[in-house]
Amino acid sequence: MANTSTVAWQKRPAVPIGDDTLASIEKYWRASNYISVGQIYLLSNPLMRGEFTRDDVKHRLVGHWGTTPGLNFIYAHMSRVIADRNQSGIYIIGPGHGGPGLVAASYLEDTYTETYPEMTKDEAGLAKLFRQFSFPGGIPSHVAPETPGSIHEGGELGYSLSHAYGAAFDNPNLLVTCIIGDGEAETGPLATAWHSNKFLNPKTDGVVLPILHLNGYKIANPTILARLPEDELLSLFHGYGYNPYIFTAGFDDEDHISIHRRYAELLDIVLDEIADIKARVESVDAQEAERPLWPMIILRSPKGWTCPKEIDGKQTEGSWRSHQVPLASARDTEEHFETLRGWLESYKPNELFDENGTVRPDVVSFLPKGDLRMSANPHANGGILTKDLVLPNIKDYAVPVDVRGGSVREATRVLGSYIRDVVRNNPTNFRVFGPDETASNRLQATFEVTNKVWQADYISPRVDEHLGRGGQVVDSMLSEHQQEGWLEAYNLTGRHGLFSSYEAFIHVIDSMFNQHAKWIRTSREIEWRKPVPSMNYLLSSHVWRQDHNGFSHQDPGFIDHVLNKQHEDLIQVYLPVDGNTLLATYEYTLQTRDRINVVVAGKQPAPTYLSIDEATAHFKRGVSIWDWASTNGADKGEPDVVIATAGDVPTGEALAAVDILKTEIPEIKIRFVNVINLLKIQGIRENPDGMTNEQFDAIFTPDKPIIFAYHGYPWLIHRLTYRRSGHKNIHVRGFIEKGTTTTPFDMVLLNNLDRYHLALTVLDHLPSLSAAHLDVYEKLRNARQEAKEFTLTGDDIPVVRDWVWPEARSLSNKVDIDATVLTAGDNE
Amino acid sequence: MANTSTVAWQKRPAVPIGDDTLASIEKYWRASNYISVGQIYLLSNPLMRGEFTRDDVKHRLVGHWGTTPGLNFIYAHMSRVIADRNQSGIYIIGPGHGGPGLVAASYLEDTYTETYPEMTKDEAGLAKLFRQFSFPGGIPSHVAPETPGSIHEGGELGYSLSHAYGAAFDNPNLLVTCIIGDGEAETGPLATAWHSNKFLNPKTDGVVLPILHLNGYKIANPTILARLPEDELLSLFHGYGYNPYIFTAGFDDEDHISIHRRYAELLDIVLDEIADIKARVESVDAQEAERPLWPMIILRSPKGWTCPKEIDGKQTEGSWRSHQVPLASARDTEEHFETLRGWLESYKPNELFDENGTVRPDVVSFLPKGDLRMSANPHANGGILTKDLVLPNIKDYAVPVDVRGGSVREATRVLGSYIRDVVRNNPTNFRVFGPDETASNRLQATFEVTNKVWQADYISPRVDEHLGRGGQVVDSMLSEHQQEGWLEAYNLTGRHGLFSSYEAFIHVIDSMFNQHAKWIRTSREIEWRKPVPSMNYLLSSHVWRQDHNGFSHQDPGFIDHVLNKQHEDLIQVYLPVDGNTLLATYEYTLQTRDRINVVVAGKQPAPTYLSIDEATAHFKRGVSIWDWASTNGADKGEPDVVIATAGDVPTGEALAAVDILKTEIPEIKIRFVNVINLLKIQGIRENPDGMTNEQFDAIFTPDKPIIFAYHGYPWLIHRLTYRRSGHKNIHVRGFIEKGTTTTPFDMVLLNNLDRYHLALTVLDHLPSLSAAHLDVYEKLRNARQEAKEFTLTGDDIPVVRDWVWPEARSLSNKVDIDATVLTAGDNE
Repeated sequence: MANTSTVAWQKRPAVPIGDDTLASIEKYWRASNYISVGQIYLLSNPLMRGEFTRDDVKHRLVGHWGTTPGLNFIYAHMSRVIADRNQSGIYIIGPGHGGPGLVAASYLEDTYTETYPEMTKDEAGLAKLFRQFSFPGGIPSHVAPETPGSIHEGGELGYSLSHAYGAAFDNPNLLVTCIIGDGEAETGPLATAWHSNKFLNPKTDGVVLPILHLNGYKIANPTILARLPEDELLSLFHGYGYNPYIFTAGFDDEDHISIHRRYAELLDIVLDEIADIKARVESVDAQEAERPLWPMIILRSPKGWTCPKEIDGKQTEGSWRSHQVPLASARDTEEHFETLRGWLESYKPNELFDENGTVRPDVVSFLPKGDLRMSANPHANGGILTKDLVLPNIKDYAVPVDVRGGSVREATRVLGSYIRDVVRNNPTNFRVFGPDETASNRLQATFEVTNKVWQADYISPRVDEHLGRGGQVVDSMLSEHQQEGWLEAYNLTGRHGLFSSYEAFIHVIDSMFNQHAKWIRTSREIEWRKPVPSMNYLLSSHVWRQDHNGFSHQDPGFIDHVLNKQHEDLIQVYLPVDGNTLLATYEYTLQTRDRINVVVAGKQPAPTYLSIDEATAHFKRGVSIWDWASTNGADKGEPDVVIATAGDVPTGEALAAVDILKTEIPEIKIRFVNVINLLKIQGIRENPDGMTNEQFDAIFTPDKPIIFAYHGYPWLIHRLTYRRSGHKNIHVRGFIEKGTTTTPFDMVLLNNLDRYHLALTVLDHLPSLSAAHLDVYEKLRNARQEAKEFTLTGDDIPVVRDWVWPEARSLSNKVDIDATVLTAGDNE
Repeated sequence: MANTSTVAWQKRPAVPIGDDTLASIEKYWRASNYISVGQIYLLSNPLMRGEFTRDDVKHRLVGHWGTTPGLNFIYAHMSRVIADRNQSGIYIIGPGHGGPGLVAASYLEDTYTETYPEMTKDEAGLAKLFRQFSFPGGIPSHVAPETPGSIHEGGELGYSLSHAYGAAFDNPNLLVTCIIGDGEAETGPLATAWHSNKFLNPKTDGVVLPILHLNGYKIANPTILARLPEDELLSLFHGYGYNPYIFTAGFDDEDHISIHRRYAELLDIVLDEIADIKARVESVDAQEAERPLWPMIILRSPKGWTCPKEIDGKQTEGSWRSHQVPLASARDTEEHFETLRGWLESYKPNELFDENGTVRPDVVSFLPKGDLRMSANPHANGGILTKDLVLPNIKDYAVPVDVRGGSVREATRVLGSYIRDVVRNNPTNFRVFGPDETASNRLQATFEVTNKVWQADYISPRVDEHLGRGGQVVDSMLSEHQQEGWLEAYNLTGRHGLFSSYEAFIHVIDSMFNQHAKWIRTSREIEWRKPVPSMNYLLSSHVWRQDHNGFSHQDPGFIDHVLNKQHEDLIQVYLPVDGNTLLATYEYTLQTRDRINVVVAGKQPAPTYLSIDEATAHFKRGVSIWDWASTNGADKGEPDVVIATAGDVPTGEALAAVDILKTEIPEIKIRFVNVINLLKIQGIRENPDGMTNEQFDAIFTPDKPIIFAYHGYPWLIHRLTYRRSGHKNIHVRGFIEKGTTTTPFDMVLLNNLDRYHLALTVLDHLPSLSAAHLDVYEKLRNARQEAKEFTLTGDDIPVVRDWVWPEARSLSNKVDIDATVLTAGDNE
């Protein structure tokens, strides 16, 4: 890597920007616009040399022009200022439709040719470059993983600014320029992302320079922010905590050089203001570095800037009509073709490209070199900067298990101690994200070694516990969108993290997940993109234990959602049942790359069943027979029935069902199976890491009834086992949207996942019921009815806590349930 | 209904608010706080009369206190001002955790007892009221459908302000007070919802009064907005277009009466300001009624206001520690119990309740009566105000079908003409919502009769086409969250609408959908809640035709997502294949109530296959055999194979496959089935509207191969047909996340949904292949390979347009494809 020795946050000597530089910027802008238009329209003859006809125009004109010239303008100027100051910077493009512009930029910086050598810097290369855009076998129309320098696609709008801040965290010398389109600015996630400045430490984090690009129009409408009175516009951004500079250009006949001079001067003012802020905090402790009003730029320019002012008698430049392909009939009609020719010629390509079609040196003379090129900055290919985490030994955090089902603990609190030390060991390479739920989800041990970052005002330590100007926990903003966006970018720039959320509300980011999963899936197929740390979800406060909240907080469907994006080992779903299995799970997931790990775990006091060694072995297998919970005798012979489980509450109820059955019908042979790696039960046809039919049958049997007690919506188990020979024998119990707000035991009763119902289901599927069995059947039905009346109408003691696994029961009537006392700090 | 004759927007005579009124307000506030605390803590002895012990405290203390006293304060004052002015108003509570407060309010207004007569206005009734809260068999802890006066649960945060504006649209005399918690204010959807004022017509719509409640804390953290410097806070809301009034109380020892006087005076100022705005627009045309700076209130008060200042030596009132249940050990420890007793006694219950436990008259003397009570306002039970739409006859919009597969049309454009007249016929009872996609999704015919509502600035008619100060299309804001929230509330207050979105990005509102579906599901089970108009989604720009955008815009998974909420007929999914079937679908869905209708339809030029009568008949059946596309002879005998289809692109490809097969192997007997009502293929066990096994087998056969060409992710078809006897014979082809950005035909090729692959799959599953068949097999493989090379590497002509159904082909080589020309206005 060349030129990695950047100099951060220098001020520029107070000398005017040279005319030659401004002339070069103008040529660069024309060249990048030309190359952008060329990609959208031209099939061949990229420089219009010799005979240039409608046959040189693509048959299908797809893509978007409107946002592109503004992006090209900004890119030119950011490149100049970066070169002038040797400032490392990356560029995040909210308007993904500007794909052609970013390809043009990296082509002009040579990064494109370095990355894709067939795209040579001559007429033949240009022809290929133009042709491939949004073309069969070519590249996507957006700023995609294929685009060097990008960590953000912008296909779905709303996340650019969150990504920018996530990239800046713990990168104190990095400038992240973020272009926010005025369409995107109307989305919810973007509208709240401006407050990210309350979580950025001016000393230990990098700088985000937001450029709000008011080109005035979306698809077919004006934009709100472009149509506010100026006092409202400026107030809004002052209110968000910025110092906004408005820059307007392109609406009159001002000379381009004059525009460039004005913008370059503004950019130097803004960069100097940033340098001053950075200089002020240089000598203070990070915990004393207070939030400044960060500068931002509001750039007003015409949508489609430099395209024809009118087409077919209708205003095009400066209107929504330039959003997509303004000359849709350029191949079909001579009139549109001639307009296109004139448009292309307006950039004077012969001044920009030499006789070989190579870009002339004065077009690019002001650009930075090596890694200073935004399209080559290593932060935008985070895998090459990724360092392994320094992980502690999970055995040091293990719950001792003297008897199975003893050692009642909150699983996520057990994990919390481990995560605390991951935080400590990796002070600039690991963060914990969450929407105000870190303590609720029991990860508060992390506060022993770090702060929750908070750059808004303080009142007093009596209420502001664990808040600090900097810190590795980022959870003081109630926005799943923000937390997801920050962590996505933290991952994509090569750092590690964990996102803890309530299970139900992780659906808030369903669509962000879709986009991120598509990005990672595509990146895995691009050789030059190196693997980045995985996205780790910790979903707690799950469907079965919404005691304080009830129906509105119950939804286990994120698992279903992520599986629509399953591809090779991209998506993983884990359902650890206790503290030790959760430790084993996280030890592994934190070491993976380019994956999305969904871990669902309880935060309520629950028994520990496996020692840490057993937990580790179980995790490695993914699916295990738990002999100690099975009743099929010392010979471990064929069972009468298999009870399979996945998830902590279902496993507890299923164990209780076994306990009941083996008391009532000692001769019944039950095999007890627990699934921790949910996708392991898939066949190897669907999942290379799945089980062969032989392996599956060896555990689940090919022909015995399988009663499957599952954490989520039952259908998923049928889907995952669809091709198994025994799939007809699988009877799944899970969440069926029978919500309640009262006791955990209500939940399992209402959703038919309780011990009695599971035991009855076992009896239902035995090949034959003896008369004795019928008595048991009746007894269980009565017990269930009694429990129902008791829990649903009578009193509010949580029956579920009364049951303990026999080993623990034999030890003591009162197992170690001290951890069950909720403290005031454990709100939910 | 009493007192419906309200007087809107009157100013109050300038006389001071009487001391007796202020004294009543204070008593009311104490009473509502007492009843709130009682619900959270007390199992029995609600008025602490006689022996009051720890046994009177609930075993499990669940629920949330922190937000409640502020809500009660606001409710008291809004009631006073509503009574004073005879102003119809509803109340939307962002903080759903304030459930106890809203139950207390409707109990004090008598609405609760009118709705639930067992909750009598005496000590016995109070005991029941307290006990039922978040208790087995009782009511949810949130402001839920069970709560009279509510249209908003607030379980998941972010949507209160969108709901408030949606309720205000077309209700010119309705005041919608919206309490936004400072936690909720940090979410993305809420942060952008402030801009809803750019879509509210001051004359023809109602008024939203936002009250931002800065109680300072979320679950375990301070809130951002409460910790901004005041200039930033005020700037922010001025920037959002409001005139903010800050009111602070509760942080010192100011007398409560003094606080009430100040707040009541402020409220009168604000209501007078609103009355002035309304008066100004009274005489102007709605299209001239310009956006004012609407007033709003920022209320700073301590979280947990009036609870103990300290508990266990830690600050509780005015801190996050009061968020949930501040005295978690009130049953377990004498110290906490005594604190609770003191807290309850601080409200002086004996001054509030008489010897029978009935609320004393002076506590409630200032409250409004009848429908003026916010808990009894009919707008909050919209079903009782719902009027049927005046629907035109779909035959007037039908596409003539002289030959099958002729009459190429854009299906959604056909629907657009019909929707135009629904708009025209129902000027205050129907709106079209969408995130800047109305024209892109081809519903622009609506602009012939209405405007896109726009209350931001105008430039000129050259660019501001179809914008107006008022209008029935609400699509000029790029936020799926806003559009969804507005329409939800428009529905819940009894009006009709349609939400058109790109299919992929509807996932943005996955989580909102979850909450809305839960609300409707629960409401259907509450007798006094009357059915409201259904939520109608029109998903276009679908996965198969993202020609301009590609992979990031491809996701058909919303169908999978909604099905996790299937319950009775709550969820419906329709996949019409052409303009006529889409008309038939919408004619029906617009007449349904209390449902969620997901309609996926193409916007690209496509053949029309069914006449309007056939389309209507097909829609009524839900699933039909298309004899005209089948090849199993005149006797309609048993086929060799069934080709089933759902969705426009899969149907087109499957018809092409039949065309190929019947040419190549005339003796092959294919039955062609189309599914328009997707859930119809379910069994009646899963769906009361599904098909019996006999009905299913009569169409799909119990034993023949079924090649199913499906619009979305293939697994869903397996799920829906899981219990069918022939389910092993079903071979589904659908979207497998093979994205591309080029031609439609690439898409079907890459995802194995193309005509060649479908035809080959038929051959694969025929019981035996003759030598002649093997030749055909080879021929098809070659044709597919050739198509792949052609489309993926060679040229960019969309092969898919070359194929037409034989009948249309025989008529003309050039079918009516004029509609295929994209105009500049049809951006996407």
